[in-house]
Amino acid sequence: MEVYRRLEERSRRLADLRGALAVLQWDRATVMPDGGAEARAEQIATLSGFVHRLQTEPEVAELLEAAEASQLDAWQAANLREMRRAWRHATAVSTDLVEAVSKCASEAEMTWRRARANDDFVSLAPKLAALVVLVREVAVARAAAFGVPAYDALLDQHDPGRSGDDVDARFAELEALLPGLLEAVLARQARRPAPRLPAGPFPRDRQRALGRKLMEILGFDFRHGRLDVSHHPFTGGVSDDVRITTRYVDDDFTPGLMAVIHETGHALYERGLPDAWRRQPVGCSQGMTLHESQSLLFEMQAGRSPEFIAFLAPLLREAFGGTGAAWETENLVRVYHRVARGCIRVEADEVTYPLHVILRYRLERALIADELRVADLPGAWRDGMRRLLGTTPVGDADGCLQDIHWPTGAFGYFPTYTLGALAAAQLFEAAKRAEPELLPALGRGEVGPLLGWLREKVHGCGSRYGSAELIERATGRPLGTEAFAAHLRARYLGG
Amino acid sequence: MEVYRRLEERSRRLADLRGALAVLQWDRATVMPDGGAEARAEQIATLSGFVHRLQTEPEVAELLEAAEASQLDAWQAANLREMRRAWRHATAVSTDLVEAVSKCASEAEMTWRRARANDDFVSLAPKLAALVVLVREVAVARAAAFGVPAYDALLDQHDPGRSGDDVDARFAELEALLPGLLEAVLARQARRPAPRLPAGPFPRDRQRALGRKLMEILGFDFRHGRLDVSHHPFTGGVSDDVRITTRYVDDDFTPGLMAVIHETGHALYERGLPDAWRRQPVGCSQGMTLHESQSLLFEMQAGRSPEFIAFLAPLLREAFGGTGAAWETENLVRVYHRVARGCIRVEADEVTYPLHVILRYRLERALIADELRVADLPGAWRDGMRRLLGTTPVGDADGCLQDIHWPTGAFGYFPTYTLGALAAAQLFEAAKRAEPELLPALGRGEVGPLLGWLREKVHGCGSRYGSAELIERATGRPLGTEAFAAHLRARYLGG
Repeated sequence: MEVYRRLEERSRRLADLRGALAVLQWDRATVMPDGGAEARAEQIATLSGFVHRLQTEPEVAELLEAAEASQLDAWQAANLREMRRAWRHATAVSTDLVEAVSKCASEAEMTWRRARANDDFVSLAPKLAALVVLVREVAVARAAAFGVPAYDALLDQHDPGRSGDDVDARFAELEALLPGLLEAVLARQARRPAPRLPAGPFPRDRQRALGRKLMEILGFDFRHGRLDVSHHPFTGGVSDDVRITTRYVDDDFTPGLMAVIHETGHALYERGLPDAWRRQPVGCSQGMTLHESQSLLFEMQAGRSPEFIAFLAPLLREAFGGTGAAWETENLVRVYHRVARGCIRVEADEVTYPLHVILRYRLERALIADELRVADLPGAWRDGMRRLLGTTPVGDADGCLQDIHWPTGAFGYFPTYTLGALAAAQLFEAAKRAEPELLPALGRGEVGPLLGWLREKVHGCGSRYGSAELIERATGRPLGTEAFAAHLRARYLGG
Repeated sequence: MEVYRRLEERSRRLADLRGALAVLQWDRATVMPDGGAEARAEQIATLSGFVHRLQTEPEVAELLEAAEASQLDAWQAANLREMRRAWRHATAVSTDLVEAVSKCASEAEMTWRRARANDDFVSLAPKLAALVVLVREVAVARAAAFGVPAYDALLDQHDPGRSGDDVDARFAELEALLPGLLEAVLARQARRPAPRLPAGPFPRDRQRALGRKLMEILGFDFRHGRLDVSHHPFTGGVSDDVRITTRYVDDDFTPGLMAVIHETGHALYERGLPDAWRRQPVGCSQGMTLHESQSLLFEMQAGRSPEFIAFLAPLLREAFGGTGAAWETENLVRVYHRVARGCIRVEADEVTYPLHVILRYRLERALIADELRVADLPGAWRDGMRRLLGTTPVGDADGCLQDIHWPTGAFGYFPTYTLGALAAAQLFEAAKRAEPELLPALGRGEVGPLLGWLREKVHGCGSRYGSAELIERATGRPLGTEAFAAHLRARYLGG
């Protein structure tokens, strides 16, 4: 036990370093002036190096081994399992490599911001190519340590235990399902009244005020968090200070507001993690598939349910002074359920979204396998968009420059969006079964039944179980595509 | 040289940790939600611990000794001298003690915020008492290592090489000077037209916009910095991302705006530090007496000069739509040169300000010497205010709760405000002598001649020289009270 306690103490220091990194990253994405980029990159690289050094000190191997032979309760054992997993990841690569990735990623991210604004892929390409080389080096080293393919080692960072084969199997099912479904949905949509987007402009301060109001309705506590603006919406900070961001456009309130609901789902997961295990690995979220299941559950399952939109409609009219048919619930449901072949992932509906992800998944596998050169990315992107979605981006800003993930070194992350969508559908189905009042309550703006179920079945579990086991415990079966398919059919082809 | 290079590499990592701490502290003071306080305190304590651990690793002693025997140029030698000084400070205390001070100070600061808002000293007292015990422990340990009195060890952290005896000598001269001078100034002021404060309210967004404009006029580069709001104005961040704060009141634009000019002086010093020595000790500012000399030079010497106020007057009228006699330069000069016996240090004029500092200096010496209990602080404060300034605060919010310093563990800091005022007067006098166009240029809103001289004589020197040597090189004589006394007589009794 004494040995285990020492590992807990180390975990607390690691959590503090990671918490500090979360602030540095949040700050960079929201308020940092451009001229601070170089210094910030150095700070983040150095702190990442300290994280890595702390994880790989020789003493840790001995402590882990000794602790694994000691008597622990189930939570402590799960905590130890997570420490071991992190140790395996960390010891597979050198501190120098970790610092090099961090610094290269910081530079690439800053370059990406300008490149995206100027639709200038060429300016990003050398930095991104250098980053791919470093990430590949990490993947190969970890793959050797874990005895898995290189790409699986990257995937494991974002969704522990997930394999490329799992992803291939689920994505094959979706590819068998979605093209036909999409045709049918678009054909049905064409036969019905067209959704009418309420006319703007929508002042940003009102969008922000309504966003904050919705966050509070959904259970967000502003004593423990913030709402800000960044290029790409994200959730950052720590469990007791969860910071979400969105971005506003003047002529359409829907993307900014839905991003708020999406990120609030992430934030509620972070806030609902077990208090008793703060600053310990078992008190952390269990990967991005589960995390994304929470954001998509709030955005897609709950937030776009006809019940919640009926609750939202008068709030929208009040916030923006809207009157007339475009502001009626029936039209707003059509607006929020609109399906289209678009180029931008973050604006995609839930029918086409998995196709965006499948494209990125294929491209990043090829980049990591050195079967695709960074210079050829724009062309490969356009080809893939045409084939999967039947559309072509105008420029790279709407194509391979649109996402922050690769320039920050996050390879192996994209699949979790769609696995998360599957999990969201499956969890929401189980929650509705367990709590018949869930949807009627959402229609009154009451999140209690939903949040109560999630707190117990998901948030409060932290990393007590792996994500596969958690989903099976919560829903009664392994993660599959059935609930998602049923959801899409019911929402977009039924009624 | 190889050994020296290794020390430089360590310094870069230290600088990154300190830069990260600067962001965490800035964030806490400006944007952090209250519920994040505990987690933030842990993060800051852990990072402070890493700083300390890095400074005190056994290897450092050997590296320093070896480097001191090697051939270095003057800048490198100064860099090494600063490393040695920091090492002496660090090795005198244990990492546990450093972390304990950091955590206790974070908690005390958060408590102080509420205590000040509620005029509730009792709620702060236990935390402050605990902090004083820890700070005393630090002082005693360092004093033993340096062979100086305990208080001098604290002073040395904020103004390297300064002794309590120095402070006593300068403060004795000021106590001989100021009471009589203050009487004379108040008597003269009573014989002249009363200053008329322009009538508000002054919308905060206009105060902010004008503040930003003045910052740019004074040479602040927003690509490398920010202006925000906090309870107590401060300058934070790093040289390439300097962040200043102010606070606004609705019915008077003068304090918020003068805080902006004051903090801009700090920021220009940070920005002007030698580029070639970023992330090295010799590339850092040389203590708070010099730092405060720069802020006071901008606020008191330049910013309140009749020349600059004449330049400022039309900007003020434009920003706030002001018309009439209250907005004329002549009246604004009287407003900015108004002298009064007040209770609030940050609102004090430059004649009474040193008396506020002398009070705090005496009290903190007594606290550290264990000759004054924290519980007796409010009473001792009121007695001192009556004796030194002839006034009494209504409550503790206007008394011993007004400053952030003690609750953050910053003992030995207050004297640097007044030493800085002396240095500001002496440096400005030398700058005017060297650059006869300096004041006329300021009257046209041109900061070039002043900033050029400061860049060369002060900012660009970093820590190449100690502050005493730097001041003597820049002005031709050691730091004294003569220039300050001459400045006060000229501005408040002359003309």
